[in-house]
Amino acid sequence: MKRNTKVSTAVIRRLPRYYRQLSELQEAGTVRISSSALGKSMGLTASQIRQDLFCFGEFGQQGYGYKVDSLKEEIGEILGISRGHTLVVLGTGNLGRAIIQNFRFSSNGFQLLAAFDVNPGVVGSEIAGVPVYHADGLERFLAARPVDVGVLTVPIAAAQQMGDRLANAGVKGIWNFTNYEITCPSPDVVVESVHFSDSLLTLSYLISQREESELQEDKT
Amino acid sequence: MKRNTKVSTAVIRRLPRYYRQLSELQEAGTVRISSSALGKSMGLTASQIRQDLFCFGEFGQQGYGYKVDSLKEEIGEILGISRGHTLVVLGTGNLGRAIIQNFRFSSNGFQLLAAFDVNPGVVGSEIAGVPVYHADGLERFLAARPVDVGVLTVPIAAAQQMGDRLANAGVKGIWNFTNYEITCPSPDVVVESVHFSDSLLTLSYLISQREESELQEDKT
Repeated sequence: MKRNTKVSTAVIRRLPRYYRQLSELQEAGTVRISSSALGKSMGLTASQIRQDLFCFGEFGQQGYGYKVDSLKEEIGEILGISRGHTLVVLGTGNLGRAIIQNFRFSSNGFQLLAAFDVNPGVVGSEIAGVPVYHADGLERFLAARPVDVGVLTVPIAAAQQMGDRLANAGVKGIWNFTNYEITCPSPDVVVESVHFSDSLLTLSYLISQREESELQEDKT
Repeated sequence: MKRNTKVSTAVIRRLPRYYRQLSELQEAGTVRISSSALGKSMGLTASQIRQDLFCFGEFGQQGYGYKVDSLKEEIGEILGISRGHTLVVLGTGNLGRAIIQNFRFSSNGFQLLAAFDVNPGVVGSEIAGVPVYHADGLERFLAARPVDVGVLTVPIAAAQQMGDRLANAGVKGIWNFTNYEITCPSPDVVVESVHFSDSLLTLSYLISQREESELQEDKT
């Protein structure tokens, strides 16, 4: 498979959406899809889809569209789903618990190995079959069993410190839910943050735009 | 303020990031910032910053940079932060509870009015001062007190149905955490989804790229 190493962030961010859309099409029994139909279902143009996928090689056949299962598999391969990445969750408050209990890690190619907390009420227990250890043992655990990703769902005050500890203990990535922009402690560690507020403010913008255009219509 | 109504999605998605960055700069006491310094802190080029902000009018002064507080205020205005949008949360499981307890709605210009659930163990109680009502009373509540946004943190099986109910009851937007792509029941309702899996798969991709380049280095 051809790989263009200079792929833009915008294209990278769309890949998981393609993967999700193709998974849904596959579940619905769709075998083949044209770039225009795929684009329509995702709010993109056919040419944008063709350009995006061209960054990663030749998919589909002119005039025949894409085979859903093989395109999904190829994109999954690009996303690293088959690499068997592992992760641990730091913090078992409501958010950590929600993620441990409900997030489908295995569908995304990840294996959740353990959770860490400092609360004596939860240390030593299991959440959805995942053992919860004391945070003091984090480095010892990671030394014995290297882990790819640390999920940060700790309180904001502990975010940077726990991020540093994860990086120093050799994780490759940090999945950051703390709403704190942690400064990457090592250039080798990728930080991916889920900022709920960015999403809500986008919604706020879109609603405000509608409100304004309704106001304009009322005036005319 | 000039408003270009054909603003691209990518620019819209960056606005909350500008707002967040400017808030942090303001808290750190920064009064003025150049487009190149602002860009550097956000991983963007100076010219991208100038282009983005140009979509919304003239900000900053050639050679003097941007005044942090007034640029933050202007962007907040564009995002609709001062409009006093209101919301209700549907579903008080771990995720709903995490959002109700920890998300800073007021910093984003939102007011959280109530939560809804069907669990008799929680209906009638309060979470962080927010009253929890039975979901059967949703329409009655929204009829008496129109609300801008419904936050969906219900189980995936209830996602579409609750989305439909919110739309029929007149909300302007749905903030969707269910990991289910709800089909917009009305063209007037904006659906903004937070897909945790898109974020994790982006991280998976970035880690996989690093792994491959390390493999290449080892070979040479």
